Amino acid sequence: MGNTNNRPLILVTNDDGIDAKGLKELVSVAREFGDVVVISAREAMSGMSHAITIKVPLRVFLIEEEEGFKKYLTSGTPVDGVKLAFHSLLERRPDLVLSGINHGSNSSSSILYSGTMGAAMEGAVNHIPSIGFSLLDYNPDADFGTSVQVAREVIRMVMEKGLPDGVCLNVNIPAVPLNELKGIRMCSQANGYWKEEFEKRTDPSGHEYYWLTGFFHNREPEGGGMGTDERALEEHFASVVPIDTDLTAYSALDKIKTWEMKAMRNEG
Amino acid sequence: MGNTNNRPLILVTNDDGIDAKGLKELVSVAREFGDVVVISAREAMSGMSHAITIKVPLRVFLIEEEEGFKKYLTSGTPVDGVKLAFHSLLERRPDLVLSGINHGSNSSSSILYSGTMGAAMEGAVNHIPSIGFSLLDYNPDADFGTSVQVAREVIRMVMEKGLPDGVCLNVNIPAVPLNELKGIRMCSQANGYWKEEFEKRTDPSGHEYYWLTGFFHNREPEGGGMGTDERALEEHFASVVPIDTDLTAYSALDKIKTWEMKAMRNEG
Repeated sequence: MGNTNNRPLILVTNDDGIDAKGLKELVSVAREFGDVVVISAREAMSGMSHAITIKVPLRVFLIEEEEGFKKYLTSGTPVDGVKLAFHSLLERRPDLVLSGINHGSNSSSSILYSGTMGAAMEGAVNHIPSIGFSLLDYNPDADFGTSVQVAREVIRMVMEKGLPDGVCLNVNIPAVPLNELKGIRMCSQANGYWKEEFEKRTDPSGHEYYWLTGFFHNREPEGGGMGTDERALEEHFASVVPIDTDLTAYSALDKIKTWEMKAMRNEG
Repeated sequence: MGNTNNRPLILVTNDDGIDAKGLKELVSVAREFGDVVVISAREAMSGMSHAITIKVPLRVFLIEEEEGFKKYLTSGTPVDGVKLAFHSLLERRPDLVLSGINHGSNSSSSILYSGTMGAAMEGAVNHIPSIGFSLLDYNPDADFGTSVQVAREVIRMVMEKGLPDGVCLNVNIPAVPLNELKGIRMCSQANGYWKEEFEKRTDPSGHEYYWLTGFFHNREPEGGGMGTDERALEEHFASVVPIDTDLTAYSALDKIKTWEMKAMRNEG
């Protein structure tokens, strides 16, 4: 491998499957920065969140290899893939975990359902600087030109500055050409939720079934409060939200500590 | 239904499947507080995190009904079940979402993989006070005596005091008899991770496969820092961690706002 062992080692994954255009675009950016190992699934794993596979065994196949580059196909979820890579596939601890570029938004509370961000959070739990990227365009053949530029900038900064332990970045990119991108803005997660419209149907045997067809609903006024990712995206900024894998609501903790519960009386 | 419509409406779910002992125990506590609707899957959904089902349709069956009580079986994940209940099954907004009682711990970063807590977080995203309960005992026939007592106390307090919007509780109960429980302690999430030991095997056709066999590793000294859930559980307290569905790492946000990125130069 020559002097490639001195290059940063970057793990790349996604939840749209190994043939997704967004993954290929991210891999090409990642290779500018170091040696790259890719792991992904045959099919899209959208909505898999931080799911792991416990009940069935995992398969992994090395499907491509060249100088400074390896690509693995796995039967597992995005988080399974990161776990497998850390513990069985990589020769050393990676310097960076990248996930995406997702076809579709993972801003606001969409992050909770996101396999893309599940993989990035798994990197952060293992104290590796990790970044998830998503483009606000579900089209399989979307134009990733702007996304690639944003990804390059954010990766460069993370490799230079690092990230706090247990924190990863959720980067969302508006579907605009590069000359319409206003910049990259550091944001908080907007207070939104998916307003589900379930479509109820009846199968040929007369039984009902439901399709989940959610759409995003923003609780904050004027398209997201000041400083939120939703607002930034509407104003054609790429949004960068630092995501904590410590989910403790510290302000609420102070409040509930004043509760007096019967079963607490043993304390002291 | 008589005057039952004035009673609180409580949605109960879990990720161990509809026949799990922990679910039955939680349902019996919930019924002390109000009308109860249960939704769960045929089989265990452990490790499903916040996963949702997009690619296949969801089935729901009403399998039990009596005054103030309904039980639904679903083909979906715990989060699917909560979504379906909110949008298609419940006649009104529930007053409380309960999840569990899980057979096994969801303390520290285990929360990230937990279907039990995924369901509770889904309740919180929808601004319903929500609580996930887990007993530190994987035994299907575990003794839930202590858990039931803790659940009763925590539910009572949440119904009295409420919870901040977007915040739910992660309650873990040590596997000790009630007279050995020291009390209930409000905690932060310990800084731990699952140290995966993958077991590599070869199938009859000569192909390799992996089983995920994780065990918990605590990064903090002396079995969890002061004030963490891990420490509380080791000292035989039940732990209550308030969990934020806003995952923004606000302290990191201040730091990364000082980054200067090329693509940001358009801003202003």
